[in-house]
Amino acid sequence: MQEKSTLIIGAGLCGSLLALRLAQKGYQVKLIEKRPDLRKTEISAGRSINLALSNRGLKAMKLAGIEEKVKELCIPMHGRMIHQKDRDEFLSPYSGLTSEYINSISRTGLNALLLNEAEKLPNVEILFNHTCLDVDLVAASAMFKDETSQEKKQFKADVIFGADGAGSVVRKSMWEDRLFLFSLSQNFLTHGYKELSIPPTKDGGYRLEKNALHIWPRGENMVIALPNLDGSFTVTLFMAYEGGEYNLNNLNTPEKVDAYFKETYPSAHPHMPTLTQDFFENPTSPLGTVKCYPWSCSGKTLLIGDAAHAIVPFYGQGMNASFEDVVVLDKILDENPKSDWKFIFDTYQKERKADADAIADLAIDNFHEMKSHTAAKIFQQKRKIETALEQKHPKDYASKYRLVTFREDLGYNEAMKKGRAQDKAILSLLNKGEINTEMNLEDVLQKINQETQEILNEDAILSGM
Amino acid sequence: MQEKSTLIIGAGLCGSLLALRLAQKGYQVKLIEKRPDLRKTEISAGRSINLALSNRGLKAMKLAGIEEKVKELCIPMHGRMIHQKDRDEFLSPYSGLTSEYINSISRTGLNALLLNEAEKLPNVEILFNHTCLDVDLVAASAMFKDETSQEKKQFKADVIFGADGAGSVVRKSMWEDRLFLFSLSQNFLTHGYKELSIPPTKDGGYRLEKNALHIWPRGENMVIALPNLDGSFTVTLFMAYEGGEYNLNNLNTPEKVDAYFKETYPSAHPHMPTLTQDFFENPTSPLGTVKCYPWSCSGKTLLIGDAAHAIVPFYGQGMNASFEDVVVLDKILDENPKSDWKFIFDTYQKERKADADAIADLAIDNFHEMKSHTAAKIFQQKRKIETALEQKHPKDYASKYRLVTFREDLGYNEAMKKGRAQDKAILSLLNKGEINTEMNLEDVLQKINQETQEILNEDAILSGM
Repeated sequence: MQEKSTLIIGAGLCGSLLALRLAQKGYQVKLIEKRPDLRKTEISAGRSINLALSNRGLKAMKLAGIEEKVKELCIPMHGRMIHQKDRDEFLSPYSGLTSEYINSISRTGLNALLLNEAEKLPNVEILFNHTCLDVDLVAASAMFKDETSQEKKQFKADVIFGADGAGSVVRKSMWEDRLFLFSLSQNFLTHGYKELSIPPTKDGGYRLEKNALHIWPRGENMVIALPNLDGSFTVTLFMAYEGGEYNLNNLNTPEKVDAYFKETYPSAHPHMPTLTQDFFENPTSPLGTVKCYPWSCSGKTLLIGDAAHAIVPFYGQGMNASFEDVVVLDKILDENPKSDWKFIFDTYQKERKADADAIADLAIDNFHEMKSHTAAKIFQQKRKIETALEQKHPKDYASKYRLVTFREDLGYNEAMKKGRAQDKAILSLLNKGEINTEMNLEDVLQKINQETQEILNEDAILSGM
Repeated sequence: MQEKSTLIIGAGLCGSLLALRLAQKGYQVKLIEKRPDLRKTEISAGRSINLALSNRGLKAMKLAGIEEKVKELCIPMHGRMIHQKDRDEFLSPYSGLTSEYINSISRTGLNALLLNEAEKLPNVEILFNHTCLDVDLVAASAMFKDETSQEKKQFKADVIFGADGAGSVVRKSMWEDRLFLFSLSQNFLTHGYKELSIPPTKDGGYRLEKNALHIWPRGENMVIALPNLDGSFTVTLFMAYEGGEYNLNNLNTPEKVDAYFKETYPSAHPHMPTLTQDFFENPTSPLGTVKCYPWSCSGKTLLIGDAAHAIVPFYGQGMNASFEDVVVLDKILDENPKSDWKFIFDTYQKERKADADAIADLAIDNFHEMKSHTAAKIFQQKRKIETALEQKHPKDYASKYRLVTFREDLGYNEAMKKGRAQDKAILSLLNKGEINTEMNLEDVLQKINQETQEILNEDAILSGM
């Protein structure tokens, strides 16, 4: 039987959902957040960061009974709108099934909803403006600084959840306290990102297709844009810090920024009246992946969400993965009502680690795929075949993207293994001339399935090596 | 033109060799070590840790002009002596060529030789008993505590080399100072290790075959033994911390340890009269891999050796990789006499990183291969074919092990790619029934080469994805 008093550090998306679910299950929840209450703080227009919410995240919303409320905040995106330099834009659908799409959603809007729902419950207490200074991992107590009164306060519970994001203080304690062998990796890409914006038209409409995720792939760098409910788009530039003609280090004057966008993203540039202002006001942020293990200490503390596994944003799965953490933990609690927290945490981390690693690796793969969308001929052939299969046989064939994004019944690790084997099978068959874009699709599908199965079998043998 | 004053932190194997080579090239070298001078400290018998020195390391010794002196410390090991439970021991040779073998060498003996050689040069100054407390990465200065006088002292140079091993203080500064995006990973295996010993016979002879690396593979755990010049063997137990009937956590009484060895390693146990004493006196150490990047900061500081890339010991390449670092740096210095240190360090880390990552990954792979030496039938067939090829066609076929160990002209990364493709090719061909242990060897070789090339081609296509 788990003890009932819980302390959750971090009231971001993951921490708020966890608070809501634990409270719904009858635990006492104290939820403590460093920042001010985002429901009461002014968010400047164009800075509302949006995210992609898809099946895994929606499953969690359903579990918490708030799926309908969340859907009101969603803007469906049915595919990637690819803006190439030398041709008209075109939509590359995410799936051949109209029921499969992802959603653009405001981080702040969703977080506010989760906080509102949690706050309705009598067994949830939320404190804002409290910075966690230090965690006693074994005693399940933590020291905070009240940023309003400047007082230091200690809170104790039966267990602590570190839902304090990529820069987690709880994780830092695990690293520094050396109570156990703690594996940790923090890896940065050579690229950083900067948020920019496309405002609504004068009459409040959208300047670009509303129901799509827009991408301007340019080989080394890229720009993407996701729609907001107010008619604007949040635009993100992903760019190398060094190298090439332009990079984040040498784009250092408004003239250079303007020239770069005009030349490189001609279909976006006219829609970005505040480009240079946004560019120099908004920070440049790094793109990092954090992995660590174990996630729990002494059955008293557990890392969850980005604190346990921060990933790069290129699969649109960061939030979905964190929400899925809560679903998995929830299931383990249901299945083991008589077990103590140590058993719960151990079971959770053993079940979840491979999936968290998989989505981290997939997200990095996808970075390379997205920015070089116009790559070698063999990849174009592969895409052509996959698109045809997804259109004509959406139930018999699912691309890696669909397995990861729309198959919430399948763990990330399984989706990755199958998706990678499929990718490899198609490229291998194309390379050997055993399939081509002119062939009968049913034959192509059969060959792909057979080759995929062979690759999976061989991988299984090799992994025993 | 590089400035001439250098400070090397850490006088272990890598730091001492680096000091020797830089001094030979005319640089001013101050070499500072935390520990006492190992040439003057008593090393208790049975605790002399030995290492495997092979071609890459020997190439560095040759470069420093001390190959002959080093060879006097070496005990050639021509293969793995496999001690299975249910059959007589047998030698699995490292190569079909008698010229290809690895060497058991005393860490202390080799380190002392390197220090002696460095000390002979007028432009080398060595300080022992000085603990590095903090490094100013940009100013190239570092603070030390003189453990004899307890004084704090600051030393400054044109550049600092962090050769301070797996627990590097210089690397810690890079992590904590946050001057740049520093990627770092530290990953532990689920196993730890403990050093034990087999003493010489009464007349000073060897109790086991002298010219072999002995292995007792037992699936989950294993014991290995390497010969020392005095007739003893240094024995290492690699064992899981948790799980199984016996593990490092539950082997907590002399009776249990003795029973475990008697039962599990019957051919080693009679030769280990000090087993239980060794077991409880010697520490249990973790097995960790450290990767990081970049290795240099501002053209002023460079991590080298284990400080930049600590690996697990299962390929016998830790020391060899660190020595190869010095060879690579040496070559870059020779090729760029007019460049500044920033250029040298940048060039070095770009050239070296992939090879350091490769040997780290290979070492982990080999752990799984070594401890489960008796695995599935297909692996036994693979070994049989490889052994036959290496015996009959040693010049036309080189296993992954040989590519990594004896081909010092080939970078680790190339050796890994080719070796893995070869392994995969053989298993795939066996799996498809296209080769078997009865077939004509020339045909087998041709098929393996062809399949390997196809896999390499496909890997090249996939890596462009």
